[in-house]
Amino acid sequence: MNFRTDLTLERAELASEKGKGIKKEFKHNDFSNTTIIDILNEETAEKLGKAVGRYITIEIPELTFLSSDLPKIVETVKESLDLLLPQKNGLVLVAGVGNSDITADALGPFVASKILSTRHLSEELQKSIGFKEMLRPVSAISTGVLGQTGLESSEYIKCIVNEINPCCVITIDALASRSVKRLGTTIQMSDTGIAPGSGINNKRKRIDEEFLGVPVIAIGVPTVVDALTLAESIYGKSDEPEMVVDMIVTPKDIDMLIKNSSSLLATAINLSLQKSLNQDELSALL
Amino acid sequence: MNFRTDLTLERAELASEKGKGIKKEFKHNDFSNTTIIDILNEETAEKLGKAVGRYITIEIPELTFLSSDLPKIVETVKESLDLLLPQKNGLVLVAGVGNSDITADALGPFVASKILSTRHLSEELQKSIGFKEMLRPVSAISTGVLGQTGLESSEYIKCIVNEINPCCVITIDALASRSVKRLGTTIQMSDTGIAPGSGINNKRKRIDEEFLGVPVIAIGVPTVVDALTLAESIYGKSDEPEMVVDMIVTPKDIDMLIKNSSSLLATAINLSLQKSLNQDELSALL
Amino acid sequence: MNFRTDLTLERAELASEKGKGIKKEFKHNDFSNTTIIDILNEETAEKLGKAVGRYITIEIPELTFLSSDLPKIVETVKESLDLLLPQKNGLVLVAGVGNSDITADALGPFVASKILSTRHLSEELQKSIGFKEMLRPVSAISTGVLGQTGLESSEYIKCIVNEINPCCVITIDALASRSVKRLGTTIQMSDTGIAPGSGINNKRKRIDEEFLGVPVIAIGVPTVVDALTLAESIYGKSDEPEMVVDMIVTPKDIDMLIKNSSSLLATAINLSLQKSLNQDELSALL
Amino acid sequence: MNFRTDLTLERAELASEKGKGIKKEFKHNDFSNTTIIDILNEETAEKLGKAVGRYITIEIPELTFLSSDLPKIVETVKESLDLLLPQKNGLVLVAGVGNSDITADALGPFVASKILSTRHLSEELQKSIGFKEMLRPVSAISTGVLGQTGLESSEYIKCIVNEINPCCVITIDALASRSVKRLGTTIQMSDTGIAPGSGINNKRKRIDEEFLGVPVIAIGVPTVVDALTLAESIYGKSDEPEMVVDMIVTPKDIDMLIKNSSSLLATAINLSLQKSLNQDELSALL
Repeated sequence: MNFRTDLTLERAELASEKGKGIKKEFKHNDFSNTTIIDILNEETAEKLGKAVGRYITIEIPELTFLSSDLPKIVETVKESLDLLLPQKNGLVLVAGVGNSDITADALGPFVASKILSTRHLSEELQKSIGFKEMLRPVSAISTGVLGQTGLESSEYIKCIVNEINPCCVITIDALASRSVKRLGTTIQMSDTGIAPGSGINNKRKRIDEEFLGVPVIAIGVPTVVDALTLAESIYGKSDEPEMVVDMIVTPKDIDMLIKNSSSLLATAINLSLQKSLNQDELSALL
Repeated sequence: MNFRTDLTLERAELASEKGKGIKKEFKHNDFSNTTIIDILNEETAEKLGKAVGRYITIEIPELTFLSSDLPKIVETVKESLDLLLPQKNGLVLVAGVGNSDITADALGPFVASKILSTRHLSEELQKSIGFKEMLRPVSAISTGVLGQTGLESSEYIKCIVNEINPCCVITIDALASRSVKRLGTTIQMSDTGIAPGSGINNKRKRIDEEFLGVPVIAIGVPTVVDALTLAESIYGKSDEPEMVVDMIVTPKDIDMLIKNSSSLLATAINLSLQKSLNQDELSALL
Repeated sequence: MNFRTDLTLERAELASEKGKGIKKEFKHNDFSNTTIIDILNEETAEKLGKAVGRYITIEIPELTFLSSDLPKIVETVKESLDLLLPQKNGLVLVAGVGNSDITADALGPFVASKILSTRHLSEELQKSIGFKEMLRPVSAISTGVLGQTGLESSEYIKCIVNEINPCCVITIDALASRSVKRLGTTIQMSDTGIAPGSGINNKRKRIDEEFLGVPVIAIGVPTVVDALTLAESIYGKSDEPEMVVDMIVTPKDIDMLIKNSSSLLATAINLSLQKSLNQDELSALL
Repeated sequence: MNFRTDLTLERAELASEKGKGIKKEFKHNDFSNTTIIDILNEETAEKLGKAVGRYITIEIPELTFLSSDLPKIVETVKESLDLLLPQKNGLVLVAGVGNSDITADALGPFVASKILSTRHLSEELQKSIGFKEMLRPVSAISTGVLGQTGLESSEYIKCIVNEINPCCVITIDALASRSVKRLGTTIQMSDTGIAPGSGINNKRKRIDEEFLGVPVIAIGVPTVVDALTLAESIYGKSDEPEMVVDMIVTPKDIDMLIKNSSSLLATAINLSLQKSLNQDELSALL
């Protein structure tokens, strides 16, 4: 079982896990299917190559054709995020992971740029603007990538966490999937953190509660299939031809996919963090 | 023989053509291999799915690691282009074909934006600036794509050709290849025009001398392999799974590949058109 | 009276024109003031430095703080445009004028990229998609600028007009104003065409019905004050210091202003052209 | 003396300082003038509104017309930077300050993106690549701005400094000048740190050795004049009209100015940090 995927849902499908180690729950509405997988013990975790914790996967239609259902999908994503957010108050650090110079890897930086940062707005200022309920303090950063900064994403986030002491970190990253059908149509969230770059680059240090000292919610959308996995998923073989290792498979309209997915995620995150604002008020502030 | 490729070199390899219908010539230097293929008659043309005419293919190392050899590669590309340019004087229209919103398809628009346009510079003005030899008149446009403009690329170019009457049109387009090894490492030129969009989109009307009434030199660089072709080139099968038809295979660093390839092509085109300028003088003017 | 401005409203204010040569009408609603100026004869036209015709100026609050009123403002702009559009049917060419590489001059290209092009959609295709009323045929292009293309904007548009024969051309251009308060808060439309580049660059050939042979509706938003005009508007002097001639005055957030203004204009234009679509249906198609 | 400027040279000109508190030195070559100002005591520092320390100002011709002199100007900038860099070894953190979404303020982020980060390259790896002399360890980040991140630039840099312990920080920021002639033609460096945002935004906390605990070299290029200062510099008055406070004066080609200036600075910084590399080797690595 060495298909390269960041999606727990795909690993769970492959393993067709039953029994005590895994719990699955399904929710449906007119425009989405939500699967909540709890990996309950280390044995199952090891079998699936995923950490113990909760994984929520939301499957939606192709984003580019949505529009009128979009507010409802945003709400669905927000509700799933509510299930993972550990507390109602306290500073949250949102960290976009990935390379803004590579379109298919730019999901994290794009989302971070659309988060409503509020940590610097004093109570006084908020009152003078007319807010009745105070906003939740939020900071939003992009980590860049090792080759640009000389710092691992995990290390970069730790720098910020150690100084500003958030109660929780939310990371956003582009993921790899086994299936082209999932690209741009699946949103995965978990409370287990991430190993960034498993989609596009090499494995990096995990970004998780163990490393950072605070809970980490990881959100991702598959944007690539690696070329070898695609070939294998079509023809079922397993010999690894060297020439395709640096190739990625993306939709033709990957630029649009990244733009739409990042808007969707950023709005859902903002709404989950700022319970006193609705979608219209939010867009007026951004 | 239904591999999807825009490269004549690949078709010729497949067909292993010998005999009277095709002529091949090879040139080598330290940093490139050049293949000149002449398709001499309609019979061979039909067999290869390519028009009668001259195809020059230059194979170079991966662009991202070049730097010090770059001026020599630029010179090689320029010399091949010199072989195809029908005249030494007269207005030339350079037309970038492709979608600037899709990274892998943006080669044409990027090159066009780096061409030295001179059609509007009067002899008087050039003398007052200090030019001793007059520049060749050049116009450079990007055609956009049908979905954005409502005009076929061929139609768009015809609009401009009919008004400004160039002696020759040079088109630049991103190509599809069968092989991931060719992406960003092969430059193809021909005097036969192109069927734009065969790389990324559906087949469009040909842009050629028959349609435009003036010679058309087509230049392209492979930037994508379609996903199905990749799977077939690895595993040799031919059943067409539906799910991958809108997927493209690109290098991870496709953004950089497009940037570097477009600089290389634009410089070579500018040098071929403006024989009185060297690379330093050119970059001072752009 | 040599204040550099593209706004007829400003010229009319300066001249405080009364009498037979000019007609003014005002409309107000909660979020905008609309002024309709008709310049009725050549004498007045000459006095104001503007052509005979209708000029509609819509004054709105700063765009960045709108959000909830935005759909209403879009509707107001659309209604004014309806007053100028000569016919209900027939192909319309939308032409973005200006330099996409200079933020403050990129309004035209940005709007053009957001226009729904429909000229290429056959009746058959539209029916198969489910449209009951056929869309109005529209093409949208950006002219680039002389230095990039070697063609005047006017000449560029003429190339396209001569081939596709629209019943009307709509141009979009960034304008200069005398007043910093107008930047991003005033929309001017006229049925008289434009002299592009009066805002940022040198005067160019007019783009109007006389030149193109079809009616030309010009739409613009002031994005710059030239530095000298600003100094004069503060201190009332008129000696022209050389050093500021290539300087422009813009809001700090000019990037956001261009983005928001172009969305507003594009939506209003799309709605005026496609009477069978509402704002939601439009955004689903783009 | 309330002209808004970040240039010590301009303040020193205004004050025409003589005497013990200030020391000036001049250097000339064919393509640049360098002024080294040492502010020697607190009294003079207060008078000039600048901290005690060394300020180096390099005046160059307009960047857009350089090309062939560019390598020499890069070398001049590098040599000045050598004068300020406290040590030959040890990790250096390069921090781009400013807002990448506002063209005129994007100098810092642009430079940071072109710095050769090496902190993550192990000695082993460097040897295997073929480096004989080890590269100096460097990290490069962009701080974003308060409104995006919720963190002051100073605070952001402190987060990173506290974790990675550099021996020195180099900041890059866009500056304000009193004079339009200085825009893009003056480079200022100092060993005193900066108060970021004095050019485009409000005053922020200083980024200096006192705050960060390590030496801070600040590098900047003027990209804006504020609109009021321009009006005053032309007409010599001092009443502050409200309407222009959020306006900036920039060259028309500000996008190009930022691009060219950031390339120049990044190359000079890279060369000063990596003494074993020449310009060609550098560009091959980036």
